[in-house]
Amino acid sequence: MSDYRITLLPGDGIGPEIMTVAVSVLKCVGEQLDVQFEYQDALIGGAAIDATGTPLPDETLAACKESDAVLLAAIGGYKWDTLPRHQRPETGLLGLRAGMELFANLRPAKILPQLIDASSLKREVIEGVDIMVVRELTGGIYFGQPKGIFATETGEKRGVNTMVYAEGEIDRIGRVAFETARKRGKRLCSVDKANVLEVSQLWRDRMIKLAEEYPDVELSHLYVDNAAMQLVRYPKQFDTIVTGNLFGDILSDEAAMLTGSIGMLPSASLGASGPGLFEPVHGSAPDIAGQDKANPIAQVLSAAMMLRYGLDQPEAADRIEQAVMHVLDAGYRTGDIMSDGMKAVGCRAMGEALVAA
Amino acid sequence: MSDYRITLLPGDGIGPEIMTVAVSVLKCVGEQLDVQFEYQDALIGGAAIDATGTPLPDETLAACKESDAVLLAAIGGYKWDTLPRHQRPETGLLGLRAGMELFANLRPAKILPQLIDASSLKREVIEGVDIMVVRELTGGIYFGQPKGIFATETGEKRGVNTMVYAEGEIDRIGRVAFETARKRGKRLCSVDKANVLEVSQLWRDRMIKLAEEYPDVELSHLYVDNAAMQLVRYPKQFDTIVTGNLFGDILSDEAAMLTGSIGMLPSASLGASGPGLFEPVHGSAPDIAGQDKANPIAQVLSAAMMLRYGLDQPEAADRIEQAVMHVLDAGYRTGDIMSDGMKAVGCRAMGEALVAA
Ligand SMILES: CC(C)[C@H](C(=O)O)[C@@H](O)C(=O)O
Ligand SMILES: CC(C)[C@H](C(=O)O)[C@@H](O)C(=O)O
Repeated sequence: MSDYRITLLPGDGIGPEIMTVAVSVLKCVGEQLDVQFEYQDALIGGAAIDATGTPLPDETLAACKESDAVLLAAIGGYKWDTLPRHQRPETGLLGLRAGMELFANLRPAKILPQLIDASSLKREVIEGVDIMVVRELTGGIYFGQPKGIFATETGEKRGVNTMVYAEGEIDRIGRVAFETARKRGKRLCSVDKANVLEVSQLWRDRMIKLAEEYPDVELSHLYVDNAAMQLVRYPKQFDTIVTGNLFGDILSDEAAMLTGSIGMLPSASLGASGPGLFEPVHGSAPDIAGQDKANPIAQVLSAAMMLRYGLDQPEAADRIEQAVMHVLDAGYRTGDIMSDGMKAVGCRAMGEALVAA
Repeated sequence: MSDYRITLLPGDGIGPEIMTVAVSVLKCVGEQLDVQFEYQDALIGGAAIDATGTPLPDETLAACKESDAVLLAAIGGYKWDTLPRHQRPETGLLGLRAGMELFANLRPAKILPQLIDASSLKREVIEGVDIMVVRELTGGIYFGQPKGIFATETGEKRGVNTMVYAEGEIDRIGRVAFETARKRGKRLCSVDKANVLEVSQLWRDRMIKLAEEYPDVELSHLYVDNAAMQLVRYPKQFDTIVTGNLFGDILSDEAAMLTGSIGMLPSASLGASGPGLFEPVHGSAPDIAGQDKANPIAQVLSAAMMLRYGLDQPEAADRIEQAVMHVLDAGYRTGDIMSDGMKAVGCRAMGEALVAA
């Protein structure tokens, strides 16, 4: 019997209600497979600001580092949008990524056959799309120095951020990407802006160098503007994508939206060692918080990713993913993915259906 | 009778053949409206590298600055991709933008009713889409200092680029965007990453300030990741978009590809005074160069944009745009936009049809 310590970060908005569902699903699969979870709740984002004045209390970071995995729901809301930067919910999330050294962010964009009609793309374009975006998460322009708003001699203000990657940072995310591609379709597309940016030139040079170690993986390159186009034009051409923090932010969201149902998509953030962080791609949806309307599936699939990538419990992950397919086949739908002839359910009822499955 | 000096930059790949078509269309409309064009050809991109060793010869920049408008076709090709950065075709284009101080890039993404089926998006999602992206073109991370690849003390290399905007740069592109929105649907969406980047925070602050001068225009804000999603999800929500150089590069290409026919899309780059630069959104397509397969319509519509925004000849611009609609209504299609039951034509024949119309 295995025993894991999980830190739960329910966060803001719909976070707490979808987290409740994920925990009930974990409980169920744990009982079946004799896996035990010990939970510890911690504060992050707006909830942490309200309680402690800071979006990432020291205790939260410490608790996360000491656990076997961290399950996060969602952060942010209008209420905290006007606070100074160091007090914003997003700053807490960035601090958590940096503090846990989670440099590799895996964001799958996979279309489920049951939900093809939710996509804004034509059926023949979106059918069968299964993309994994591997995004660098602790470097690039998100963290580069110098940054800030500075006054020039004339008194005019200048805003500055720095996009920087060192060879070592590129290599370690590159390796994760090649390994990931190896377990999938063996095709890796590296996205950069090497025709304009020196930092991208270094990125491309290193990817080409790394490719020598992975002769079984086919490496290609696209400029980020072209990648944004190709995702819309013909997304099936992609298997695994690797890119920097900012381009990954943009492209993984674009890829996710191709599926039409971001309420379904989980993500994993991993470091070299130590616990990983698992969270849905969608946000905290403050407008529907507490109304039992949220779709808990991305949160539940994030728990599955936690089992697969964080705790090495693939069997448990499989069971959860099968339960999701089962519930969708049975016609259960929350409002965001509702279509004609399906059974409309709320967040709680969807959770019950998942546990039953 | 008006007389204009136009610098033509045919460039590389399909550039020369589509430029020939645009010039024949200009000749035709000029005769009708008693407008005369004096042309001067100049070298840029790969063609300039081959002839002179540099992608932007001094004479080219001088010629462009002295003319009333510049019409560019396309630059680049595999042949020059492995040259050092300062000798690449792209570097010539960036030098031209900077040298002519073309800080405002207007990129329309408008769906033509005749070509709706070319889009990968569902008809009901794409029908009626008419977006204008106003992209800052001479600042941001494309030009910010420091930039380069530097060795650290340990000998490890670091790639660095700097995203920087000063208030004055933001204000001048902001004004162009508000003026543009005012002439269109009066809705302006400013795209940034203000939840993470200080440079974006300054950008947003200035846009909010500028909005006071344009009470008739409705200003909204989106983070760039969300904008990339919203373009796919529901592009009709957008009227005019304003954003920085890098985000504009990505989003204008994504928006263009929504239409499914980037062989149809022109663009304009304008400065505070002095001549503008007009060019198609698509690239130089070296794989089909010289085979009479290229679609010249984006180039022809770029000539129309030149007449409208560069030379203040709206009547001539209207006539060209009407000719394009006429030819499409009559069923003429180049290979890239061909569909069942239409008349397949090459580049030259499309040009003749346009002149006839
Ligand atoms: C909330 C924000 C800081 C974050 C990011 O930009 O990384 C989010 O967009 C994401 O992609 O997880
Ligand atoms: C060729 C390249 C330098 C250029 C850019 O990035 O600006 C192109 O992508 C564009 O959008 O005009």
